[in-house]
Amino acid sequence: MTNSTSTLWLGDMAFEAMVNNHKIVMDTDTQLGGKDLGPRPKPLLLAALSGCAGMEIVSILKKMKIEDYKFAIDAEADVVPDHPAVYNEIRLIFRFWGENLHREKIIQAINLSFDYCPVYAMLSKAIKIVYLTFINEAEVTL
Amino acid sequence: MTNSTSTLWLGDMAFEAMVNNHKIVMDTDTQLGGKDLGPRPKPLLLAALSGCAGMEIVSILKKMKIEDYKFAIDAEADVVPDHPAVYNEIRLIFRFWGENLHREKIIQAINLSFDYCPVYAMLSKAIKIVYLTFINEAEVTL
Repeated sequence: MTNSTSTLWLGDMAFEAMVNNHKIVMDTDTQLGGKDLGPRPKPLLLAALSGCAGMEIVSILKKMKIEDYKFAIDAEADVVPDHPAVYNEIRLIFRFWGENLHREKIIQAINLSFDYCPVYAMLSKAIKIVYLTFINEAEVTL
Repeated sequence: MTNSTSTLWLGDMAFEAMVNNHKIVMDTDTQLGGKDLGPRPKPLLLAALSGCAGMEIVSILKKMKIEDYKFAIDAEADVVPDHPAVYNEIRLIFRFWGENLHREKIIQAINLSFDYCPVYAMLSKAIKIVYLTFINEAEVTL
């Protein structure tokens, strides 16, 4: 299988990408000559990682018959001060809310998701990725 | 500097990420339990790479006083058949249209962009990235 995108320059610093027939506009802020018409390209990596891991996690939890919960993922990455201004570490914070959520199963689902999520597999070759897990606002570990 | 995103599960396979105060919905297709409300996470990497390199290229060309042209970037990546279904190679196709476009300056701008684009720097540690350049539909090389 081949994935493909088509990205068109809109002028100034703005670009419009077609991704799976959905439009994504990318732009910079006004200080850098943009108009903030869309997100910066680099933090899209954080969104892609969060979405990829998230989809695997909800799929795994569904197989474990865990379906009644709320779920969000925060991602943070420090930017190195030199060019190219890469991320040297990404911190993922998995947040679950719900009743009777099984701590061990949730952490197991997170760890399993990393084995299946291709965005994690690719980015983790270049960037250290660490994570924390919260259930009902309390940090949990194995 | 720290980049951050917040990604909320919308149910089924859909996630909504806030990236630089812009919403990006990610979803899968219906065969995988999604509703195609947005792009898949993985090809967002191709869009981020295209946007990042593209922004650097138009900035460099502007410094070279090259500003009157149209510009698009196609990205393609083969997906390996096993899990995790990573990309093993990304092909970027830079397409320029305009009058009196200077072949060598354009290729120079593309090569320089790779030195500055952090998305390229990160992804190229994990994935082979190759590129082609077209000016007015004709392939050009140095």
